[in-house]
Amino acid sequence: MSDFRQKALDYHAKPVPGKISVELTKPAEKVSDLALAYSPGVAEPVKEIAADPDNAYKYTAKGNMVAVISNGTAILGLGNLGPLASKPVMEGKALLFKRFAGLDSIDIEVKHRTTEEFINTVANIADTFGGINLEDIKAPECFEIEQELIKRCQVPVFHDDQHGTAIVTAAGMLNALEIQGKEIHDCTIVCMGAGAAAVACMELLIKCGAQRERIYMLDRKGVIHTRREELPSHKQAFANNTDKRSLEDVLEGADVFVGVSGPDVLPPEALKLMAPNPVIFACSNPDPEIKPELANSVRDDLIMATGRSDYPNQVNNVLCFPFIFRGALDVRASTINDEMKVAAVEAIRSIAKESVPQEVLEAADIDKLEFGKDYIIPKPMDPRLCQRVAKAVAQAAIDSGATDLEALPKGYME
Amino acid sequence: MSDFRQKALDYHAKPVPGKISVELTKPAEKVSDLALAYSPGVAEPVKEIAADPDNAYKYTAKGNMVAVISNGTAILGLGNLGPLASKPVMEGKALLFKRFAGLDSIDIEVKHRTTEEFINTVANIADTFGGINLEDIKAPECFEIEQELIKRCQVPVFHDDQHGTAIVTAAGMLNALEIQGKEIHDCTIVCMGAGAAAVACMELLIKCGAQRERIYMLDRKGVIHTRREELPSHKQAFANNTDKRSLEDVLEGADVFVGVSGPDVLPPEALKLMAPNPVIFACSNPDPEIKPELANSVRDDLIMATGRSDYPNQVNNVLCFPFIFRGALDVRASTINDEMKVAAVEAIRSIAKESVPQEVLEAADIDKLEFGKDYIIPKPMDPRLCQRVAKAVAQAAIDSGATDLEALPKGYME
Repeated sequence: MSDFRQKALDYHAKPVPGKISVELTKPAEKVSDLALAYSPGVAEPVKEIAADPDNAYKYTAKGNMVAVISNGTAILGLGNLGPLASKPVMEGKALLFKRFAGLDSIDIEVKHRTTEEFINTVANIADTFGGINLEDIKAPECFEIEQELIKRCQVPVFHDDQHGTAIVTAAGMLNALEIQGKEIHDCTIVCMGAGAAAVACMELLIKCGAQRERIYMLDRKGVIHTRREELPSHKQAFANNTDKRSLEDVLEGADVFVGVSGPDVLPPEALKLMAPNPVIFACSNPDPEIKPELANSVRDDLIMATGRSDYPNQVNNVLCFPFIFRGALDVRASTINDEMKVAAVEAIRSIAKESVPQEVLEAADIDKLEFGKDYIIPKPMDPRLCQRVAKAVAQAAIDSGATDLEALPKGYME
Repeated sequence: MSDFRQKALDYHAKPVPGKISVELTKPAEKVSDLALAYSPGVAEPVKEIAADPDNAYKYTAKGNMVAVISNGTAILGLGNLGPLASKPVMEGKALLFKRFAGLDSIDIEVKHRTTEEFINTVANIADTFGGINLEDIKAPECFEIEQELIKRCQVPVFHDDQHGTAIVTAAGMLNALEIQGKEIHDCTIVCMGAGAAAVACMELLIKCGAQRERIYMLDRKGVIHTRREELPSHKQAFANNTDKRSLEDVLEGADVFVGVSGPDVLPPEALKLMAPNPVIFACSNPDPEIKPELANSVRDDLIMATGRSDYPNQVNNVLCFPFIFRGALDVRASTINDEMKVAAVEAIRSIAKESVPQEVLEAADIDKLEFGKDYIIPKPMDPRLCQRVAKAVAQAAIDSGATDLEALPKGYME
């Protein structure tokens, strides 16, 4: 067994199994403590919540609690291994919520027969939490699941594989294009992959200014075009009225390549076809669509990002999901809307343009980081993220009417 | 607002809302930590669990995690106030699981239209946890819910309002009868109330030796007898072939009164009808079926227990539920069977007969406690409970085949 594999298993097994525990936030030692925490004292907050459901935020842990919910149908790059096998990932996500944003988070793994049953199950337990982070649910079911749950739940529902990826990608992309001297409105974009993350990335880039007709999305059968038959609706939205059919066809003169597909699908020869100063996001993990060293050996005018921490410009969802929930829960937003997503994009972008705190350099074991080709996205350990992204998201929630201002504690956002 | 009411609300609201949080049990500071906790390291335990579901106990928090699940249809004595209003109680129960047995516990409040939908919802998320404590679910639905979930879940499911109450009642009852010089086999038992707790108490007393035909159960319409029509099945099981119709009819010469009904329903005159040396469990909370001072003023040969902490002999579920789950989870029992319940009864009983540790006296603010009329049940703060009850339950699980010995860590129970 490899050293790393053994270390990863040991980390999960010792000294106690798993990564999270539930702890008490109130005294519970004396008889008098327990008379407040449980019967008879607990009847008082019960009556307050029965009179006004909003009081759940005042008297219970709901308002700081995010459920990480999966059915295990698309675990990391490992595929459909079922709900129980997804548990370490979901606990890991809960760990990241706490570590980065101070949110209490618990994982729930759901088994189900139909998509409807999954939706019903989650909707039935949703009020327990302040927000719901859906995770590792395969396409196309994930689209219907998220849309239905957003409709049915009174708390924010967010499929991180879609929107977390999209937000961090958009932040990095806009910075990369700025450095390359390109306007997103004018860019031809090739998106390799047509799954949940791909669709969400392209939709968000469109909201940030990209033109739908200049996007070419490819699935296993090649370019998704208007003459393809039996396209599912999420692909139909990106069917391009074009005669181009192959990756090479669409890469010719393209400004941007976004890969959310599989390893080594972007041949170096094809890369040469792109316009000057291209931007390459090769996000397949752990093996990108083209290795950075290979891409850089073919041409020297590109900016490249991957999903890996051992190359520059890591597209890492942890830059977003803890803070978008932190912001949403801070102002008790009922949803996470496009305005809040775009606010997160802008906040993440702006941090990369500022000078980097010493502690971030130390955590990343790097001497120097300066906005440029090799630093278009902040590092995950950057403590400015929580404050800035959460605050921007919260403000956008307020400005866009996603939150009930009356319900907020007095003095919030002052 | 009363002082106590304000204190109870403040306890729940400050300094943070609610009573529980989720914390990390593993290091998560450095980049290298996160590479183990999340991608890429987390893939290793995922693959191990996909290969063998039992590995979830090795690599995740599942094995020490109990879900406290309610639909809020029977909250304390407050009635059906809905799932969200039950949240402070469920968080309180989670707090007690941690405080008394070191179990991680999280509350889940479920909304649903039909009983079947509740069952499906809980069954679908059950694998997330090591055990499921059902709470504050009204009768008669609670019976079907528990039975179905026991069938469908691979982890122990336990409706505490039924069986926790029954176990503590049985422990106290057997000790009280011993002091009164009575054999349960010979006792005539009057049970006022025919809800979930009443039925469970009587069923467990029968397992401990009581005779079904010597039990008289009463609901709002009086004695439940074989000529009553349209009895639900849980009451039918206690329909007595008798001509007695009123409380007074059945109390005449009875040895035991168990009240799980409502305040002041046992008139002092009726109490006089009972046999010499009777045992009275008046468990309606906060106001018992008869106040102890009133009962004692009518006759001096009785032993009395209530649900209250300010009288002797408190029937408190916390004497049982943390430890029955602790024992069940320690040996990874797949269910909580009758043998385990009876083992809990015997373990709780035995503790009351032994000399009381000084710390228990101090916590209860009492100078002296000695097995007798005023001390038939251990105090909730007794640290012997966890060790002894959990161990007895675990041993009973092993002896009764409720656990897979192969799955246990080596050296367990030695």
